[in-house]
Amino acid sequence: MKKRVIRSPFFCVNPKAYLYGEKALKMAKKADELAEKYDIDIFFTVQYVDVYRIAKETSRLIITVQHMDSLTVGPGMGYILPEGLVEAGVQATFLNHAEHPVSINQLVTIMKRAEELGISVIACADSIAEAQAIATLKPDVMVCEPTELIGTGKVSDLTYMEETNQAVKSVSPNTFVLQAAGISTVKDVRKAIKSGADGTGGTSGIVCAADPIQTLEEMVEEVVKVRAELKE
Amino acid sequence: MKKRVIRSPFFCVNPKAYLYGEKALKMAKKADELAEKYDIDIFFTVQYVDVYRIAKETSRLIITVQHMDSLTVGPGMGYILPEGLVEAGVQATFLNHAEHPVSINQLVTIMKRAEELGISVIACADSIAEAQAIATLKPDVMVCEPTELIGTGKVSDLTYMEETNQAVKSVSPNTFVLQAAGISTVKDVRKAIKSGADGTGGTSGIVCAADPIQTLEEMVEEVVKVRAELKE
Amino acid sequence: MKKRVIRSPFFCVNPKAYLYGEKALKMAKKADELAEKYDIDIFFTVQYVDVYRIAKETSRLIITVQHMDSLTVGPGMGYILPEGLVEAGVQATFLNHAEHPVSINQLVTIMKRAEELGISVIACADSIAEAQAIATLKPDVMVCEPTELIGTGKVSDLTYMEETNQAVKSVSPNTFVLQAAGISTVKDVRKAIKSGADGTGGTSGIVCAADPIQTLEEMVEEVVKVRAELKE
Amino acid sequence: MKKRVIRSPFFCVNPKAYLYGEKALKMAKKADELAEKYDIDIFFTVQYVDVYRIAKETSRLIITVQHMDSLTVGPGMGYILPEGLVEAGVQATFLNHAEHPVSINQLVTIMKRAEELGISVIACADSIAEAQAIATLKPDVMVCEPTELIGTGKVSDLTYMEETNQAVKSVSPNTFVLQAAGISTVKDVRKAIKSGADGTGGTSGIVCAADPIQTLEEMVEEVVKVRAELKE
Repeated sequence: MKKRVIRSPFFCVNPKAYLYGEKALKMAKKADELAEKYDIDIFFTVQYVDVYRIAKETSRLIITVQHMDSLTVGPGMGYILPEGLVEAGVQATFLNHAEHPVSINQLVTIMKRAEELGISVIACADSIAEAQAIATLKPDVMVCEPTELIGTGKVSDLTYMEETNQAVKSVSPNTFVLQAAGISTVKDVRKAIKSGADGTGGTSGIVCAADPIQTLEEMVEEVVKVRAELKE
Repeated sequence: MKKRVIRSPFFCVNPKAYLYGEKALKMAKKADELAEKYDIDIFFTVQYVDVYRIAKETSRLIITVQHMDSLTVGPGMGYILPEGLVEAGVQATFLNHAEHPVSINQLVTIMKRAEELGISVIACADSIAEAQAIATLKPDVMVCEPTELIGTGKVSDLTYMEETNQAVKSVSPNTFVLQAAGISTVKDVRKAIKSGADGTGGTSGIVCAADPIQTLEEMVEEVVKVRAELKE
Repeated sequence: MKKRVIRSPFFCVNPKAYLYGEKALKMAKKADELAEKYDIDIFFTVQYVDVYRIAKETSRLIITVQHMDSLTVGPGMGYILPEGLVEAGVQATFLNHAEHPVSINQLVTIMKRAEELGISVIACADSIAEAQAIATLKPDVMVCEPTELIGTGKVSDLTYMEETNQAVKSVSPNTFVLQAAGISTVKDVRKAIKSGADGTGGTSGIVCAADPIQTLEEMVEEVVKVRAELKE
Repeated sequence: MKKRVIRSPFFCVNPKAYLYGEKALKMAKKADELAEKYDIDIFFTVQYVDVYRIAKETSRLIITVQHMDSLTVGPGMGYILPEGLVEAGVQATFLNHAEHPVSINQLVTIMKRAEELGISVIACADSIAEAQAIATLKPDVMVCEPTELIGTGKVSDLTYMEETNQAVKSVSPNTFVLQAAGISTVKDVRKAIKSGADGTGGTSGIVCAADPIQTLEEMVEEVVKVRAELKE
């Protein structure tokens, strides 16, 4: 499979384990519609069991899993086979999220498997030191979230965003940076993209909002607005 | 969801990570046809991404995953949400396979989640001591495979099978015992059921056979034959 | 090595990683003096690096580590070799503490190594279900602490203590039960032993007390008092 | 504690879990004598329980543990407290050995603890990609061993050694490189140092030799010889 080309600025909807089945599908369809309408790339993370169905019922989303293993075809019970993901419709995977850390050796091995199969990698780091270490592996996208902000609704400050964007780009200029810690308002979305990040998005900021679908729409539209301003 | 009632003797097709996508679906359809034809319960393990599709295209199989986590709806990146499994069509899960061991505390917690959601548990043990410890938790099915035989095509000897059947039943009389280590011929299938086990099945004995589909058919038919003999 | 015979009621000082070096040695000497004075068995847990020194400078304590691995003599980097422990003076080990869970397979394997080498095992469980599963392995001592009480200074209620004592003894009559969750006063000590437990002790209740040495002394003396009362 | 200054070329005796107690002490004393005689820095890895005793009975060795945790003073059962190591005499630690991998986040955190306490870090990598990622964290020493050679007695080829030396130095010029995979003869020792490595050493090449003490002596003397040649 050829790896999909990602265009900046992009958006990322990461429902973690908040959504599954019908509800995940419903939000995915909305995100797909927005991706179409605004010609924007949207990563949408899903439970593994929902990959096939969501891939079938959407056309523009980058179907993304929240972790994958380096398992190869053969034995291995209950791990995530990359070949299986691809056949079901996966195009990207998160790796090394603070809630799912991997050893460095595993990260290198899984990234090699992703490369072989054309799966884009969104690698996560908890600190600037970790971000720079991982950036040497040239992932497609990097997230650098201070662990203490995850799920809090507190956004990283602008200085932190600029520093991490810079830290990653200085090591791997072609890696995109996703700033998504604590994003819960359109103002946060604007701030993230304005910081120089290539993408933004969220989890609880969207799925725990009073109206998740509307929040998603407003956030994506804000990215589109900032995109237009940056082109001027 | 109400937990599905399992009837002894049953069969278990466990393709691990040997099969996925179309190939897994093809074998699942054959197994489903056999389950129908012979009115026999068949556990069929799948990659998570294949659950939905295989559940949609079969009607009699017990769609089984190879591991699940105790994750609840909310945060958690890249773990297996039981609610998501159920909505997609899962009815059973393996736990604590030698290739995916869990801590005792996790096992207790995951089994509680399975109970809540009506998911049958096939718990694995590596030794008689471990089997008796786990049997106290009253899983629906237990597998007791000497780790050194997994994937070898060498079957446990009859004495070992009888001892483990007995060890499990003495602690938890209602737990079914699955004898599946190294099963690769119809003779092995017969031996397993004759040992007093409630079920048998295999991985490499089926998927690595010259003709996997035919091997599956012959093995299931052998279980059916022994079932008839035992009724006489 | 022959396994040391433990006598009920015993006491357990578990400084976890609160104490090390000189400070651990000082408390160990006090505990040793109390063990001598009152002819009582006292488990004293230490950092691995402190084993040799504390073993050399005490004579009655049961030098206890907080975990050990099943590693055998040979390769293996940074794991705990049981033979090394024994030569340095270790007589007992905790296993499967909520802060250091192990898989069931590992627990069985480590306990086999302990048995070979004459190391007593204090196995921990988080719930009654887990306690009964582990009790089938017949550890020397079992601890059954509701995880949510560890380090809180809240003691398990009497009913919980009685239930867990009973749950363990019903499966393995010769296993001693240690009730140590949240013990911080002599009243807690009395309650634990009165519940039918074979031992009690603590971590933060001792090391975080205003005067840890005096608290240790008072707690041990309380066990001795209850011991006398029970003999009457 | 101030971190000890390491001088190149150095030697590393890594008995893993092959030696403990008296036998480890005996070899440590010999290594200490050689360190003195030839004024050379020698890392000597030990079981945790042997730290105190070996530190007391040697004066020149760099007492090294095979892993440490990031644990801080407080709760935590059965993990390695860095403060305890230092008080007992530890001056260095291996981290992320192929037999004890850590997550990237843990590596960053443990290295911060080591820095605070003046403990030198010998970080391991399995591949050039992994080596470069870790080199960004500027460990004191790096080992880059192709996992498949560990314990085989097959040495890395010269090209691999030169490439890894270069890969590490290009990212972190002040990090020393240790080439120790499969070193079992004085010829291997010479080759490693000649490749441009700052140090060499071994495990099975020494402890499994017909005469381990003599092998150690010959290897150290070979480093000393090459050192003299390089000075000319």
